[in-house]
Amino acid sequence: MPPSSLSGTAFDPGAFSATDLIRTKRDGGRLSEVEIDWMIAAYTDGYVADEQMSAMAMAILLRGMSREEISRWTAAMIASGETMDFSSLKTADGERRLTADKHSTGGVGDKITLPLAPLVASCGVPVPQLSGRGLGHTGGTLDKLEAIPGWRASLSNEEMLAQLDSISAVICAAGAGLAPADKKLYALRDVTGTVEAIPLIASSIMSKKIAEGTDALVLDVKTGSGAFMKTGEDSEELARTMVALGTDAGVNTTALITSMETPLGLTAGNGIEVEESLEVLAGGGPADVVELTVELAREMLAGVGITGVDPAENLRNGRAMDSWNQMIAAQGGDPQAAFPQAAHSHTITAGASGTMTRMDAMAVGLAAWRLGAGRARKEDAVQAGAGVRMHAKPGDQIAEGQPLFTLLTDDEERIARAEEALEGSVDVDVSGGPAELPPLLQGRITAQDL
Amino acid sequence: MPPSSLSGTAFDPGAFSATDLIRTKRDGGRLSEVEIDWMIAAYTDGYVADEQMSAMAMAILLRGMSREEISRWTAAMIASGETMDFSSLKTADGERRLTADKHSTGGVGDKITLPLAPLVASCGVPVPQLSGRGLGHTGGTLDKLEAIPGWRASLSNEEMLAQLDSISAVICAAGAGLAPADKKLYALRDVTGTVEAIPLIASSIMSKKIAEGTDALVLDVKTGSGAFMKTGEDSEELARTMVALGTDAGVNTTALITSMETPLGLTAGNGIEVEESLEVLAGGGPADVVELTVELAREMLAGVGITGVDPAENLRNGRAMDSWNQMIAAQGGDPQAAFPQAAHSHTITAGASGTMTRMDAMAVGLAAWRLGAGRARKEDAVQAGAGVRMHAKPGDQIAEGQPLFTLLTDDEERIARAEEALEGSVDVDVSGGPAELPPLLQGRITAQDL
Repeated sequence: MPPSSLSGTAFDPGAFSATDLIRTKRDGGRLSEVEIDWMIAAYTDGYVADEQMSAMAMAILLRGMSREEISRWTAAMIASGETMDFSSLKTADGERRLTADKHSTGGVGDKITLPLAPLVASCGVPVPQLSGRGLGHTGGTLDKLEAIPGWRASLSNEEMLAQLDSISAVICAAGAGLAPADKKLYALRDVTGTVEAIPLIASSIMSKKIAEGTDALVLDVKTGSGAFMKTGEDSEELARTMVALGTDAGVNTTALITSMETPLGLTAGNGIEVEESLEVLAGGGPADVVELTVELAREMLAGVGITGVDPAENLRNGRAMDSWNQMIAAQGGDPQAAFPQAAHSHTITAGASGTMTRMDAMAVGLAAWRLGAGRARKEDAVQAGAGVRMHAKPGDQIAEGQPLFTLLTDDEERIARAEEALEGSVDVDVSGGPAELPPLLQGRITAQDL
Repeated sequence: MPPSSLSGTAFDPGAFSATDLIRTKRDGGRLSEVEIDWMIAAYTDGYVADEQMSAMAMAILLRGMSREEISRWTAAMIASGETMDFSSLKTADGERRLTADKHSTGGVGDKITLPLAPLVASCGVPVPQLSGRGLGHTGGTLDKLEAIPGWRASLSNEEMLAQLDSISAVICAAGAGLAPADKKLYALRDVTGTVEAIPLIASSIMSKKIAEGTDALVLDVKTGSGAFMKTGEDSEELARTMVALGTDAGVNTTALITSMETPLGLTAGNGIEVEESLEVLAGGGPADVVELTVELAREMLAGVGITGVDPAENLRNGRAMDSWNQMIAAQGGDPQAAFPQAAHSHTITAGASGTMTRMDAMAVGLAAWRLGAGRARKEDAVQAGAGVRMHAKPGDQIAEGQPLFTLLTDDEERIARAEEALEGSVDVDVSGGPAELPPLLQGRITAQDL
């Protein structure tokens, strides 16, 4: 289904009736390719009204969509805007350099993009990582990087291509021109209770990634209480739907399903997550962050045909850190600068001794958000220094009175509500026996599994 | 549930989140009384946006509502505006005169309100019949009456009360003050594919009828291919839902379920339907129109406790016609004036001889609409003379070449598309055997049946 076969934003207003198409989906029917093209083009144009699209979104949420419908819906959203093209990236020998990208569905403490992009780049693969800002409890990659003094998120397409050519790694804001239909629909779904529709989640993510023009894509689909998808079943369905979309569009797509019961690493915030990423790039850092970074790097490398390289080696030998320093400097950031520190901190201690068996990711994410690391509305600013530091994780032995969390914020009055969020967020087995923890990697979906 | 316990249009914006309430219904949950009050008040105010209410309407359509939810939803819509009160109507002896009203869910050729209101009034019962204009294939009572030169649909509440007191019969336009939430929601549902939700249909109809303050109400719920509800099951569910709503609100409510496979009577249009109604008021007219008029009159009379009167008698003795003449004259109409005639007519003849076994109501309604009897958009005008005259009905023996339909319109170019609508609309059994026809009256639901 090449996008060139679509009509773009041109559409005949009289060709279909939005109400008829809503009724078709409402009654469990399938929308045809031309009907989907029309609906998306007419909505992007404003001819189909928000109240019509929200009724359609609710019907899709409750009735579902076939693989063919989701695929066409995604293609129509891509056709609503511009697409990017990295095919001009060449080796010294004139061979095409295939690009690899990663997308996470969002988790607490999920800073993986930060070490991952320079790590993969240090293995010679260009990583065009278009990212977003956070809304809600999971934080955004750009918010984290903006804690670095001087760093800028906005690059022109030309700057991005030049940086990929010279440094291989770029993390920047997605331009407004990619899939404008998705931007409009995403904002609408947010206020109409239609976010949780797997066809719409999948097409929203994949329309941007396919429009971006990457050759390989690895999806990190989070599952568990701190994730958008709470059950393994939903996570697997989302993963399969997205892998199918990528595959249908010619992108070499793989998904890992990873646990999000507990936060990743020991930090949830902005600057403190960059600090932790630097530990990983320096060859240290929390085991779960390292494990996931290396796994995803392997998948990205495999996606462009590189299998003989151990990415973990480049964390130890400093090459990934070199890539990071180049990447940050290229976008105006000072890799050596100190991070802004929060004005206030508050420590929460353990109420009992024993084995920690659970730390609720959602509670930690909510606390970080309430401390100022996230935003309630798009126009809000985030605090670079705010967030939650964790001093122990599930599986650890803890002693009564030892610090569990340090809350960081510029506004002291935010601390009380963050504490509230953390009430009951940690379980301790006072018998001190070993904790049974879910594995970080829970599944893998490739085109062969469809 | 007295409306006085509701908050009216006053609401606290921060009390609930529209998105949360949409999610509750989307996931199959029940909305509480205060949540429903808030949603309706905030929507009437504009605080809840159209795109949020349309998503809610789709969730209601697909998930349903409990009897308690529908009842509260209706009460909240009533509380959004003013209510009427006919309790000042008294007999010469100072006793309260109970009022009776009828509502039809809409059918082709359904002119029953026209003879029915004066017929019931002629039996001494005040009939405050608030009616609407037509949109789509079924026509509107006000459109029909406006074919009478001079007749006006708009009355003030005082004029309406005075006319009920003196003549007992009034058919007029519903004021804008009754259930404004319903008006807004109805317009929204029309463009968002959410018309066909039984809870929303029932609460829309009943909010206006309850706000109108009638003592007794008879519902004519149409069922069949020419009706909004195509199946007996849906029609019965709608009837039960509305009878429950009326009963819960203290209105003596009964529903008849009547067949709408074939048009009612021999006319579908505006002026021609008034002409047919006059035949009924003169003691003649098509048997099905007479039967349904008399049945509904009996129900209305019984609803206010009158059982010893045969309304058919007042069709024969001219009293119903007297009431009609007074009612029309009181609203500026000339009961003796000739009706505007359509400029063009076109006859369709039978292609075979035999027994007519079917005449599709939807096709006839669509033809009348295309000829100019109905409107496509609210702001369109209708033609007083346009419509379809039928020369035979199912059960009749017909001969090849005899007239079946006469199409009437002021715009000759409309005839071709009306003819198209009628293609295949009539079945003829060439063996000439008797036709098996569904009975006109298919069911009756009272408060005892709930």
